[in-house]
Amino acid sequence: MPHYEPADSFETPRFTGIRTFMRLPYVTDLEGVDFAVIGTPFDTGASYRVGARFGPAAIRNASALQRPFNAAQKIRVYDHLSGVDYGDLPTVPGQIEESYRRIVAALTPIVLAGVTPVLLGGDHSVTLAHLRAVSKVHGPLALVHFDSHSDTWDSYFDFKYNHGTPFKRATEEGLLDPHHSIQIGMRGPLYDPEDLDVARNLGFEVIDGYELPQYSPEQLARKIRERVGDRPVFITFDVDFVDPAFAPGTGTSEIGGPSSRQALDYLRALGQLPGGPLKFVGCDVVEVLPAYDHAEVTALLAATVAFELITLLALAKAQAKQQAGQL
Amino acid sequence: MPHYEPADSFETPRFTGIRTFMRLPYVTDLEGVDFAVIGTPFDTGASYRVGARFGPAAIRNASALQRPFNAAQKIRVYDHLSGVDYGDLPTVPGQIEESYRRIVAALTPIVLAGVTPVLLGGDHSVTLAHLRAVSKVHGPLALVHFDSHSDTWDSYFDFKYNHGTPFKRATEEGLLDPHHSIQIGMRGPLYDPEDLDVARNLGFEVIDGYELPQYSPEQLARKIRERVGDRPVFITFDVDFVDPAFAPGTGTSEIGGPSSRQALDYLRALGQLPGGPLKFVGCDVVEVLPAYDHAEVTALLAATVAFELITLLALAKAQAKQQAGQL
Amino acid sequence: MPHYEPADSFETPRFTGIRTFMRLPYVTDLEGVDFAVIGTPFDTGASYRVGARFGPAAIRNASALQRPFNAAQKIRVYDHLSGVDYGDLPTVPGQIEESYRRIVAALTPIVLAGVTPVLLGGDHSVTLAHLRAVSKVHGPLALVHFDSHSDTWDSYFDFKYNHGTPFKRATEEGLLDPHHSIQIGMRGPLYDPEDLDVARNLGFEVIDGYELPQYSPEQLARKIRERVGDRPVFITFDVDFVDPAFAPGTGTSEIGGPSSRQALDYLRALGQLPGGPLKFVGCDVVEVLPAYDHAEVTALLAATVAFELITLLALAKAQAKQQAGQL
Amino acid sequence: MPHYEPADSFETPRFTGIRTFMRLPYVTDLEGVDFAVIGTPFDTGASYRVGARFGPAAIRNASALQRPFNAAQKIRVYDHLSGVDYGDLPTVPGQIEESYRRIVAALTPIVLAGVTPVLLGGDHSVTLAHLRAVSKVHGPLALVHFDSHSDTWDSYFDFKYNHGTPFKRATEEGLLDPHHSIQIGMRGPLYDPEDLDVARNLGFEVIDGYELPQYSPEQLARKIRERVGDRPVFITFDVDFVDPAFAPGTGTSEIGGPSSRQALDYLRALGQLPGGPLKFVGCDVVEVLPAYDHAEVTALLAATVAFELITLLALAKAQAKQQAGQL
Amino acid sequence: MPHYEPADSFETPRFTGIRTFMRLPYVTDLEGVDFAVIGTPFDTGASYRVGARFGPAAIRNASALQRPFNAAQKIRVYDHLSGVDYGDLPTVPGQIEESYRRIVAALTPIVLAGVTPVLLGGDHSVTLAHLRAVSKVHGPLALVHFDSHSDTWDSYFDFKYNHGTPFKRATEEGLLDPHHSIQIGMRGPLYDPEDLDVARNLGFEVIDGYELPQYSPEQLARKIRERVGDRPVFITFDVDFVDPAFAPGTGTSEIGGPSSRQALDYLRALGQLPGGPLKFVGCDVVEVLPAYDHAEVTALLAATVAFELITLLALAKAQAKQQAGQL
Amino acid sequence: MPHYEPADSFETPRFTGIRTFMRLPYVTDLEGVDFAVIGTPFDTGASYRVGARFGPAAIRNASALQRPFNAAQKIRVYDHLSGVDYGDLPTVPGQIEESYRRIVAALTPIVLAGVTPVLLGGDHSVTLAHLRAVSKVHGPLALVHFDSHSDTWDSYFDFKYNHGTPFKRATEEGLLDPHHSIQIGMRGPLYDPEDLDVARNLGFEVIDGYELPQYSPEQLARKIRERVGDRPVFITFDVDFVDPAFAPGTGTSEIGGPSSRQALDYLRALGQLPGGPLKFVGCDVVEVLPAYDHAEVTALLAATVAFELITLLALAKAQAKQQAGQL
Repeated sequence: MPHYEPADSFETPRFTGIRTFMRLPYVTDLEGVDFAVIGTPFDTGASYRVGARFGPAAIRNASALQRPFNAAQKIRVYDHLSGVDYGDLPTVPGQIEESYRRIVAALTPIVLAGVTPVLLGGDHSVTLAHLRAVSKVHGPLALVHFDSHSDTWDSYFDFKYNHGTPFKRATEEGLLDPHHSIQIGMRGPLYDPEDLDVARNLGFEVIDGYELPQYSPEQLARKIRERVGDRPVFITFDVDFVDPAFAPGTGTSEIGGPSSRQALDYLRALGQLPGGPLKFVGCDVVEVLPAYDHAEVTALLAATVAFELITLLALAKAQAKQQAGQL
Repeated sequence: MPHYEPADSFETPRFTGIRTFMRLPYVTDLEGVDFAVIGTPFDTGASYRVGARFGPAAIRNASALQRPFNAAQKIRVYDHLSGVDYGDLPTVPGQIEESYRRIVAALTPIVLAGVTPVLLGGDHSVTLAHLRAVSKVHGPLALVHFDSHSDTWDSYFDFKYNHGTPFKRATEEGLLDPHHSIQIGMRGPLYDPEDLDVARNLGFEVIDGYELPQYSPEQLARKIRERVGDRPVFITFDVDFVDPAFAPGTGTSEIGGPSSRQALDYLRALGQLPGGPLKFVGCDVVEVLPAYDHAEVTALLAATVAFELITLLALAKAQAKQQAGQL
Repeated sequence: MPHYEPADSFETPRFTGIRTFMRLPYVTDLEGVDFAVIGTPFDTGASYRVGARFGPAAIRNASALQRPFNAAQKIRVYDHLSGVDYGDLPTVPGQIEESYRRIVAALTPIVLAGVTPVLLGGDHSVTLAHLRAVSKVHGPLALVHFDSHSDTWDSYFDFKYNHGTPFKRATEEGLLDPHHSIQIGMRGPLYDPEDLDVARNLGFEVIDGYELPQYSPEQLARKIRERVGDRPVFITFDVDFVDPAFAPGTGTSEIGGPSSRQALDYLRALGQLPGGPLKFVGCDVVEVLPAYDHAEVTALLAATVAFELITLLALAKAQAKQQAGQL
Repeated sequence: MPHYEPADSFETPRFTGIRTFMRLPYVTDLEGVDFAVIGTPFDTGASYRVGARFGPAAIRNASALQRPFNAAQKIRVYDHLSGVDYGDLPTVPGQIEESYRRIVAALTPIVLAGVTPVLLGGDHSVTLAHLRAVSKVHGPLALVHFDSHSDTWDSYFDFKYNHGTPFKRATEEGLLDPHHSIQIGMRGPLYDPEDLDVARNLGFEVIDGYELPQYSPEQLARKIRERVGDRPVFITFDVDFVDPAFAPGTGTSEIGGPSSRQALDYLRALGQLPGGPLKFVGCDVVEVLPAYDHAEVTALLAATVAFELITLLALAKAQAKQQAGQL
Repeated sequence: MPHYEPADSFETPRFTGIRTFMRLPYVTDLEGVDFAVIGTPFDTGASYRVGARFGPAAIRNASALQRPFNAAQKIRVYDHLSGVDYGDLPTVPGQIEESYRRIVAALTPIVLAGVTPVLLGGDHSVTLAHLRAVSKVHGPLALVHFDSHSDTWDSYFDFKYNHGTPFKRATEEGLLDPHHSIQIGMRGPLYDPEDLDVARNLGFEVIDGYELPQYSPEQLARKIRERVGDRPVFITFDVDFVDPAFAPGTGTSEIGGPSSRQALDYLRALGQLPGGPLKFVGCDVVEVLPAYDHAEVTALLAATVAFELITLLALAKAQAKQQAGQL
Repeated sequence: MPHYEPADSFETPRFTGIRTFMRLPYVTDLEGVDFAVIGTPFDTGASYRVGARFGPAAIRNASALQRPFNAAQKIRVYDHLSGVDYGDLPTVPGQIEESYRRIVAALTPIVLAGVTPVLLGGDHSVTLAHLRAVSKVHGPLALVHFDSHSDTWDSYFDFKYNHGTPFKRATEEGLLDPHHSIQIGMRGPLYDPEDLDVARNLGFEVIDGYELPQYSPEQLARKIRERVGDRPVFITFDVDFVDPAFAPGTGTSEIGGPSSRQALDYLRALGQLPGGPLKFVGCDVVEVLPAYDHAEVTALLAATVAFELITLLALAKAQAKQQAGQL
């Protein structure tokens, strides 16, 4: 069975070669693959700035700086995982429902093949399609959602599908179990006081951006652990979760967010959970708009977040192996 | 009856005040108005780079540098015309057909009121809505189309409405009379040799970007004159008509186009036609994407093109007045 | 009596329309107006980088992302306030004293009409004109000044008026009561040890940027409360108060400042004062230079700061109403 | 035998997928391949600005806009050619001679396999390695060199290998036949009057940038034709051949060059030669520095130039087929 | 007597060392100096975009690419001239009249010392100060003025000194002889038809931007020659003379200007005059705003223009030497 | 004996004059000089992004904002020190070993003259040359190294000299005493778990980026103090030590680092050591790549770091004077 890992950067410089995520091989045959990095280049769901269709390419470019040993978590990721870059899912610019159909049709077989998808958006509307495909295999998902917005509007301009509504839709469609889901980091002004309560009324737990500074990464991780229990978990990370100083290249920035370091600390704490790892079945990193980025700061943040999420997979697998060995 | 003209830049500096086109008053009551500058902030029709929704704002910002006397044409534009900035037409990002409905509904009464619309896109898909509204009042239009692409595809990804198809649709819908229409400047690679002929088969005359250098501005103007005859004329100007050195801020650049000076010369020659002015009933300037612009070069080009088109209106009115006077 | 509030962004997208602050109506008739957002596009006072004349336009552009419910303060701002965008004050580029005259002449009637001005600079020299107009109506003001510089030089190159001197001048002219004023955040190298003491010798309390990290937002708010007492308060916020990572688009950046989140926390704490709200009569946000900004990070910070200041007004009015109701 | 051509952009949008040149398949098995696009990401030879190591990736990104039918030459390129993106050649940043060894070792087998290499630099020093590999198979080459500099210095700082010396070295090494080679476009100040004559003394014909405007594209093409005769031709195109307005993203810009349109016209005229096509055995496009580019203008120019060169191959093959058919 | 010339770029790379113009020594002792490059970092006269105070530094940075042999004119400039970078003249930001006093006081002794000043602006208002100093020594000057604006307004906002008025003032003060002066390239809209005539009524000959394309460089040079006769000539070059594609980094761009190549051709033709060289006593290059530039395109244009002007000096001196030798 | 200090910015604006560090005089005669700011414009050692050769010029430009009184440390630096800008050391782009030879040859006499060098890189490979020169005079050095990478690889692509290896080489060559050296801030993924231990196995103490947040500036300073003892100390500061939000303009960014304020606090705490100042004999600030910077944020950080390091010298000298006075 093949084992896939990044090209050796001591042999060819990291700026060399066709741009795949982390210099992984570009492979579409899923035999022997644990996780696949997959782009969803789509931005018709965006309500303000647009351009996330170029997000996957930008994240791939920036990911050349990632290396296989996660020094924060002290794990050689590819000792435990075989991973590939699968390329991009099909989309139709300007056609959100058709794009959903194509994304779901293309993504479902990957999930069915037992591969964990690490998805690169696209605006946040693509997460609805991601959840449709993943929940088709794993059932209702526990969502862990890092963002400065809840994205639980009912509609925008009387339309149901766009980047402000995916988690309302996902709840209605039964893709999520909101009672085991959690949203973290919402901040910025709203249209209405009720906006605050929409997500909570749907059943989500919300730790907003004003409460968040009171949580240490460990406390937040425990909170998440408790919330999701042993349900299959999907993590969605919108880069506007962090302050625009750390992620200028995004569509609807909100001033006053956490730093990149804090964001990474929150994610890393999920790898050190006392009760064992999350049952992590998929994730996406969304809303990178390279036309507004500079020096690839946002794209590199997204690539690093994706690598930290992959690391959580590796940690879970390592732990499982260890437990199996102990039996 | 009110007369509207730009704020006096000897009284308040040009960088002062709410950004309207050319510092015209922002007015939505159409009494006494000859032309209205109107934005159509929409880009869901874009097949590659996106962001033309911010085009109208960018063109307004840059237009502060325009002044009322057109020195090339030697005419004081506001001696002959009263003009306003009408603001933007309603659109729904992500919903092209609904946006068309809203644009047409909002634009038609303006045209009916006898006001000549000077429209600022938006990607080129918005022109279909512009043509629907204008032809509803003026009947089938003679199109004068400056662009590096014909935009006469039948569909993209099996979808009928986007920025590659407006002139196919407009012909089918009878909004245009292709036999009195002309396309100028098409260049860049195509998918197929037949692509070259689609527009011609629809009935358009096409002077492609390889033939164009053989025409002097005067020859081109005469060619256009001849083609459109005395039919009502709509002029559509895609900024990618010029070389990307002169218009970097656009969505689907084609290397090797004319310069800004050449583009202006073509337009200005239309004001000096021997057989009298075109019967000019509306125009748009499209595909300005400020996120890719620098130093407002593209936005300023678009603002200047819009001013040259307004000048054509003024010249026609001046000529009409003169002729009336001579009777 | 008219009530003014932002355009509904569920009806027209936020990227639509003539750019006014927060999509407020552009109105110059002050009946029924509680606060007016007003630009002062002027930068002749700048000693290093220039370009703040384009600050008001940039802040207006970025403010489209602001929405009317302040989620941090949990208040629907326009339930308590009617607000407009009044446009810009007249200035003469290159002529600071003449500009002061024109600004004061235009601003004074607005203040006299009982409208609270929320002013958008311009370089920091414009604050002297703002203070002249506001103190003409409200008497000597208590200044709350967020900045990385004291701006209390006596002169620069033997000239009295520029962005390094406004608070020296304001004190001399009796516009301020320095003994009830406070400066916060000064940092970065100086010309002389005495520079440190100039502001203090004038009577200001100064919490410099090295002491500031020792204050929690609540402690700082109490300190300010104590200092200003029940005098009429003018808040001036120079965006270089924050670190240049959070505000690159400014003129005289000083490395090592607070984050955007910290700045917002300081302002928000002023809305939660135990002894009741400040008697807040005017404010400005200055030194936004869009030519040095990227992805509108600085302009969006300034827009957010302005909205937080407007929220303080709303909170005060809400509290007053509540107290009136309790009587 | 496999036939390779670009992905169909009516099926998946052009912004989709792993970035290869023109959306060609990424293939390293050379069976059935007529030409291979290959990157040489190297910039240690640069004497002023650096960063051409990111050139191949940038050109690939921009090339997504290229389509398979060359409308200027009226040829469906992939009816005549099968082409792939081969990825990048190995280099060692900081080590020019070692990089030369690795490039030559990797490139020679490709040329030996009968594949025409279309190489993407890299700074101009890489052309020496390209010439070593190509001439190893085809013997001394006739060089057609578009550039604003002759790059025929003997040494820089006493060192023999850098981007100022490749054509001196290539002549010394017998890779070129200077008497059948031609340099076009040299301009800008020099160190010494003798600098003008170095290339001529080596045997090159030089049409400098001051003489060039006197040549029509057809005249230039005939001049080149005459010069190279029926020798195997290598075309090297440095993007600083054009004016920096058309190619800002390069390392040693010279003001006052031709436009993009003129550059394309020169290349296209080579496809319409009366005496039959050039015997074209390889080419490179060099000195794209994306860190200095904006809106991908330079990268898109380079991608277009590469496509025009590929078109010359297709035209030659079409002509050969036709002649064979006529026999 | 000392002879000054640029550092040898074969010894130290051109990106090395304190940034002086063309890597000339920074010298303020004028013995043995033929020409001095001098900055006038001032922009208080600007009516729209500001930032030309950083122009001299930007031009110096870009000038590192200039080399001492002018290949277009075929002259080794420093065989005939000794030149230095003198640094910057004193200015007071925000104070135009005081700045004029300081500039004139500092520049006059340089001119008196027989040194030809090559001045780097600054906005165009600085030229008035330059002319005051130069005419003090040489008497009324013949002006050769390349620009897209006449800069002959009487006042702006009732103020007499700014970048729109210098040549009106200079004429009034007798610094110029307008009847032997010429303005070239004016284009773009105006406030009034009379604006066209202001300069002509003052006595200037004006070849506007619409007539200019009819002149070959040689014809233009002869026209200039004729106009200035044997009077002392001052050349002033505003970079907005060229199209913004070639000079984005400026303050009041006008679309539709000549290219950089055309601008250089006009200047170079002045070196090949049949009736002998102009009596050239000083020059400036103005309105470079680096905050709006990219890839140093504008700064490099300005540096090249300055070098071409220096070359005219060298050509004149060479010719004089030759004539002396022939006697 | 001469005393050198910055130009008075109350006399000439800070944007005026030839760009030297902090507006210090450009002097190469070392009499009376305590410290010299010296550039090392070299980047051939870079493994990913390149362009640090323009670092010294960018840092000099940004340093114009520095003023002589360090308000954080409350010391008038030039009361204690005489300092100059010495210009740049000689390098050969593309030739690392030759550049080392030239740097060492030029730097050694400066160190021998008793001048403390404050060096501006350049990529981090230049530090090896700096250490060779400084240790030649002062013997094995105690290194204090702020960075996100250890730079202690043995080789890259089998080559010994580049920006990933300087501290391995320095240890081998005996330039450092690793047992009295300390590395601070290493973070980001690695190739291998062993990578973590390379520096430690060489003898360095390493406080990695994950441990660092646990140290207060004072604790870190004491740790450093303890480690280096009274050995001669060289401080090397790679700007990628801080998060890319604070230093976008660098070559191998690692997300999740400290802020600028934290970095300055660490340095400033070194000036307040209980056991007396460090025996500080030299320093460098490296890896500024202006092509990736914006609004000079990174360059200004580097300039500020250099000024803080100079302040440490001043504090040590002041303390020494005081102690001498007390005897």
